[in-house]
Amino acid sequence: MDKFDWTDKKNLTMLADYYEFTMANGYLENGMDDTIAYFDMFFRSIPDDGGYAIMAGVEQLIDYLKTLSFDKEDIEYFRSKEIFSEKFLDYLSNFRFVCDVWAIPEGTPIFPREPLVIVRGPVIQAQLVETMILLTINHQSLIATKASRIVRAADGRSVIEFGSRRAQGYNGAIQGARAAYIGGCIGTSSTIVDRDFGIPALGTMAHSWVQMFPTELEAFRAYAKTYPQSCTLLVDTYNTLKTGIPNAIKVFDEEVLPRGFRPKGIRIDSGDIAYLSKEARAMLDEAGYQDVQIMASSSLDEFVIKDLITQGAKIDAFGVGERLITAKSEPIFGGVYKLVAIEKDGVLKPKIKISNNVEKITTPGFKQIHRFYDRKTHTPMADVITLHHEKVPEEGPYEIFHPLFTWKRKTLTDYYTRPLLIQLFDKGKSVYDGPDVHEIRDFCRTEIEHLWDEVKRFERPHEYFVDLSQELWNIKDRMLVSHK
Amino acid sequence: MDKFDWTDKKNLTMLADYYEFTMANGYLENGMDDTIAYFDMFFRSIPDDGGYAIMAGVEQLIDYLKTLSFDKEDIEYFRSKEIFSEKFLDYLSNFRFVCDVWAIPEGTPIFPREPLVIVRGPVIQAQLVETMILLTINHQSLIATKASRIVRAADGRSVIEFGSRRAQGYNGAIQGARAAYIGGCIGTSSTIVDRDFGIPALGTMAHSWVQMFPTELEAFRAYAKTYPQSCTLLVDTYNTLKTGIPNAIKVFDEEVLPRGFRPKGIRIDSGDIAYLSKEARAMLDEAGYQDVQIMASSSLDEFVIKDLITQGAKIDAFGVGERLITAKSEPIFGGVYKLVAIEKDGVLKPKIKISNNVEKITTPGFKQIHRFYDRKTHTPMADVITLHHEKVPEEGPYEIFHPLFTWKRKTLTDYYTRPLLIQLFDKGKSVYDGPDVHEIRDFCRTEIEHLWDEVKRFERPHEYFVDLSQELWNIKDRMLVSHK
Repeated sequence: MDKFDWTDKKNLTMLADYYEFTMANGYLENGMDDTIAYFDMFFRSIPDDGGYAIMAGVEQLIDYLKTLSFDKEDIEYFRSKEIFSEKFLDYLSNFRFVCDVWAIPEGTPIFPREPLVIVRGPVIQAQLVETMILLTINHQSLIATKASRIVRAADGRSVIEFGSRRAQGYNGAIQGARAAYIGGCIGTSSTIVDRDFGIPALGTMAHSWVQMFPTELEAFRAYAKTYPQSCTLLVDTYNTLKTGIPNAIKVFDEEVLPRGFRPKGIRIDSGDIAYLSKEARAMLDEAGYQDVQIMASSSLDEFVIKDLITQGAKIDAFGVGERLITAKSEPIFGGVYKLVAIEKDGVLKPKIKISNNVEKITTPGFKQIHRFYDRKTHTPMADVITLHHEKVPEEGPYEIFHPLFTWKRKTLTDYYTRPLLIQLFDKGKSVYDGPDVHEIRDFCRTEIEHLWDEVKRFERPHEYFVDLSQELWNIKDRMLVSHK
Repeated sequence: MDKFDWTDKKNLTMLADYYEFTMANGYLENGMDDTIAYFDMFFRSIPDDGGYAIMAGVEQLIDYLKTLSFDKEDIEYFRSKEIFSEKFLDYLSNFRFVCDVWAIPEGTPIFPREPLVIVRGPVIQAQLVETMILLTINHQSLIATKASRIVRAADGRSVIEFGSRRAQGYNGAIQGARAAYIGGCIGTSSTIVDRDFGIPALGTMAHSWVQMFPTELEAFRAYAKTYPQSCTLLVDTYNTLKTGIPNAIKVFDEEVLPRGFRPKGIRIDSGDIAYLSKEARAMLDEAGYQDVQIMASSSLDEFVIKDLITQGAKIDAFGVGERLITAKSEPIFGGVYKLVAIEKDGVLKPKIKISNNVEKITTPGFKQIHRFYDRKTHTPMADVITLHHEKVPEEGPYEIFHPLFTWKRKTLTDYYTRPLLIQLFDKGKSVYDGPDVHEIRDFCRTEIEHLWDEVKRFERPHEYFVDLSQELWNIKDRMLVSHK
């Protein structure tokens, strides 16, 4: 095999759990292929006990759904299992996606229990896409959310995604860097991400560059000669304060300034970053390089960065690698995909999954989410999940209530609303032309700026209101009561 | 764009950190393109404070190295940056990989400070492949190591990889499942992994199957009719003990047995798994289904599994998802890639990276690793890192010593040795035809069986001996002394 095993494939249709296929075949065998199913993807808790998460991955989800199909090799694979009917294999051979799909646009702050993606269509199809919907949205939302935490911790300083080498697989690196950019990073170390998404790739030298030359000074000099216009030097290969920074200053004086450029920065990748950065700042300032930036890297995350800032570290930019690209502190975004209704002969029948664990009870029905913004400050005040075609009043007052503790009520006034779920596919046809990743990032920044500070704090954030409309609540309550 | 952004590409050459290219261009500009560099990939500590890790990802690394090349779009991308010389762009356009590469075969237990991969070649090339070597080996070794821990905790019971939906990207799922299989899982939930690697895909039904029918009994009945030969029923959609298991038994009696099959199992995915499994076992036994297996899933890992077994849970197979596929307890395998020697005009010059942190000092030189096995028990007793062409005596006694506390010495006798590093590429030509994933898994199982129990224990395992030969130690010591 001279190529990657996946590069000769045009799609990832087979990246689906095996049980999706045993169920699909079973639905067909049991005459249920015409039954329309409604599935919600949603999540139950925010990683790191945060106050909000960020939706990401919709562009890749669309790519996946657009290219769904099975080739001969796939059909032969299933046939070899000797449990799938020929009728089912015919169905797969002639597969054409016909579902309706809605999703919350990328970059939107999202909250537990909200449907992030809704799929409506023949149960066979709506079931088959479960794995990839979850994988795609879970992964990118996880990394965008983590990036947003780190960027907020950096408090205005730049954060660059540096994690490819520690990512969990190629797409962990590539789509991870994309998600990190949506969450607020200014760039990435990964070249392929720049080529394919136009996300700025950044980076200058590794320790090996310095080691390749007889001395650190010669290494810096060679670099400055080659890149006088963007000269950032890695100063910690031997001794940061005794040789690294003095040599950098010497080379800035000798090589960069005479060519008519300002040196750009130094990078510190080890040692006591807080202390070293303060010393480095003083040395650079003393030498007339007040504008030269100090970049730090080395197992950083939002906790380390907040602590560095508290210690008065003089850092202008953070390179954040492994703890961002794997979301180390909580590397799982727990999105699930649940059946919420079926439709047969035009009649919609809501479905509920009961559980002893109240948190695991699903909300039935075909839904929409309305976000209520303060008309003056544009602050999101609450999200209300309604039936899909239910209207919310354009002007208040509108009373919301806690879905479990229903006596907890609040009246919203002076608001405008936005429906969060946008249709991506109409009977299998792509109908959404999403923004590019730069627009998504801008949108995300604005949305997060408008969130309450209480929702954004790191410790015990305020729980943003996600309520049900009275009509949806009634349906759920009736089903719970009748189940008892 | 109607295809995934990566499917029209034949390679992942551009999945490299941007600084690999700025350095490569710099080496060329500074007339160092002929300098031969030696890089070691190694790691410094075992995830989860374990006693061993498992090498994985070599097959994918070979695929990557075989397909290295730059197309016109890549060259245009670099040209647009306005910092790369035309000479360098020419070099990339005509890129042909000419390095020598060695690696430890997949499935081998590996230990900190050992070179897992060695690259020898023109510095431009040996530098460029850093990111993907690290990404590929770090990712799969992480998951294989985690899987091995979980499989050992399960103590003979089956473990199945169930994590695609929570994986970090598509390849997190696909290559992750491959690595989990190497580490000892018996199969995966992922269909594409079965199609492409022949790793058994397993799975039966989700809760949605049960919800799609008017009653649980009807859902089970329909499933049993469709799949009497492999009937495993998910019993926790409504009430495991009151309806799930009784309905399963009823359907086994009514539908499976009359068709001449034995029912296969039940699956429990929520609730108090220990309690429910014991009750389920009793109910199944009472009904004459002593051979029906109980499978458990639901946020499992090695810690939960050990605890379940301690509690006397009656579980025959574990489906392990998100905590395996992300290696949740420690989702980073910290492999690094360091320059250890350069060669110019045929003269080899070892290189060392000094650090205040003793753990971060590198070991210079071009190396081999020899594993010493006990001739009678086949237990690995120690690994000795030597110069590449250094011989170790075929028969003992052979004295090893701790590289830091050199008075700690031990004499090995009655051994045989195996060189761990195998050549993958000879001047850019692939020369290694690796085993398939099933052979790798068998090899891994045998190697781990032979490890000392003290190395395998979960809490404070014995630190396996990884020493340097006297000759290699002398070189390192001389460099450290002369640096002072």
